[in-house]
Amino acid sequence: METISIGQFNLVYNAFSFAIAVMGAATAFFFLNRSQVAPVYRTAITITGLVTLIALYHYVRIFTSWNDDFSILNGAIKPTGKGFNDAYRYIDWLLTVPLLLVELILVMRLPAKESVAKATKLGLLAAIMVLLGYPGEISTDSGTRWLWWTLSMIPFTLIVIDLFFGLSKSIEAQPENARGLVSAARYVVVVSWLFYPIVYVFPMIGFTGSDAITAVQVGYTISDIVSKAMFGVLIYMIAARKSETEPAY
Amino acid sequence: METISIGQFNLVYNAFSFAIAVMGAATAFFFLNRSQVAPVYRTAITITGLVTLIALYHYVRIFTSWNDDFSILNGAIKPTGKGFNDAYRYIDWLLTVPLLLVELILVMRLPAKESVAKATKLGLLAAIMVLLGYPGEISTDSGTRWLWWTLSMIPFTLIVIDLFFGLSKSIEAQPENARGLVSAARYVVVVSWLFYPIVYVFPMIGFTGSDAITAVQVGYTISDIVSKAMFGVLIYMIAARKSETEPAY
Repeated sequence: METISIGQFNLVYNAFSFAIAVMGAATAFFFLNRSQVAPVYRTAITITGLVTLIALYHYVRIFTSWNDDFSILNGAIKPTGKGFNDAYRYIDWLLTVPLLLVELILVMRLPAKESVAKATKLGLLAAIMVLLGYPGEISTDSGTRWLWWTLSMIPFTLIVIDLFFGLSKSIEAQPENARGLVSAARYVVVVSWLFYPIVYVFPMIGFTGSDAITAVQVGYTISDIVSKAMFGVLIYMIAARKSETEPAY
Repeated sequence: METISIGQFNLVYNAFSFAIAVMGAATAFFFLNRSQVAPVYRTAITITGLVTLIALYHYVRIFTSWNDDFSILNGAIKPTGKGFNDAYRYIDWLLTVPLLLVELILVMRLPAKESVAKATKLGLLAAIMVLLGYPGEISTDSGTRWLWWTLSMIPFTLIVIDLFFGLSKSIEAQPENARGLVSAARYVVVVSWLFYPIVYVFPMIGFTGSDAITAVQVGYTISDIVSKAMFGVLIYMIAARKSETEPAY
């Protein structure tokens, strides 16, 4: 681990703690307010809460790993040599990124067969995207990072195309009071997911040493908060809006 | 404990952390979504959640035991001599393996008398199977391992025979929309359970030292995720599908 300033250490430390607070609160909100939406949308809200629960677990681990990797004594910081575990993020994404797409598909309430087909296709692409990113993430060589970044962008692009063109017809079929929100949810997925490949290239475009580490860790943390907790609130709002027009509710 | 490389240590460490995330998320899903199935199937879903909850507890213990067994300083790893506790897995299986069979029997909804008889018979056989495996697991002698492996395979074979021949008639009696899933659940039990005796023999067929330890720990972890969490999702899907045809639901 590179030498890092106390200011940088604290910035990352506080970003992780912020993420723990947000993911914990978001999980409690989704689980408690699940009963406020019509039964047909409750599975979507359960999954929404699982995503932030899994992220909560991993941010606690990431926070501990970061903390154990440095020792601060009398205002001086030095690495302990334990190493910061980058794998937590990728294990988290491997589980949560497919689930995020399942949330969106469930809240749209497509015909059962189409839901399963879409969830399987997009979920698999998302898992492949995450797996292809990892070998580059743990490399410090720019060429290796670009190679895996490029490979990972292939499933990413396929998901974006599917969300924009494959789902257009289904969005037209949404009840009018929810159509705008569902369409917005697609944009939130794409825009918040775009942060990840951008953060990934920080170390390849001039950020070096501790600046790169700080920018990557803070960048991923902000991206996770937007794409899991804020996106989840949007899913909840769609479910609540659509529940108003549920006949049996 | 054998010397182990940092890469192997981290692989096992991350596999255990992955299992904690999966078992925790699965438990939350089963407990929350239990209300989404008809009342007659809720006990099956409760048991499904208990299995992943018990596994969550044991993976936290296993993770801690693994972590305490090694110390990493300045990029070098060495055993602390505390020892890794293999018993956690067998205590877990002693509780969860009979419960897994109970899940399957409950979701099939056989006549009450038959359910109790089947659950007692299969549950006892499963407990005997786990108990017979343990003396071999803690032995490093190949002959001893083969002896207990063979003994443990006797109840294993009896369970497989019962699942395939004893349950055939009951599967015919399942509602049509769930028959395929129930039949698939039997295969998932048998195929995912087959991983265990295969992983068990790794140290007897050429894997040695830290390679054997790594292969066994990662192998059992994958088997547990498939046979508890993924199998549980299948049980949930069967319950949800069968709830659709419940007259009073």
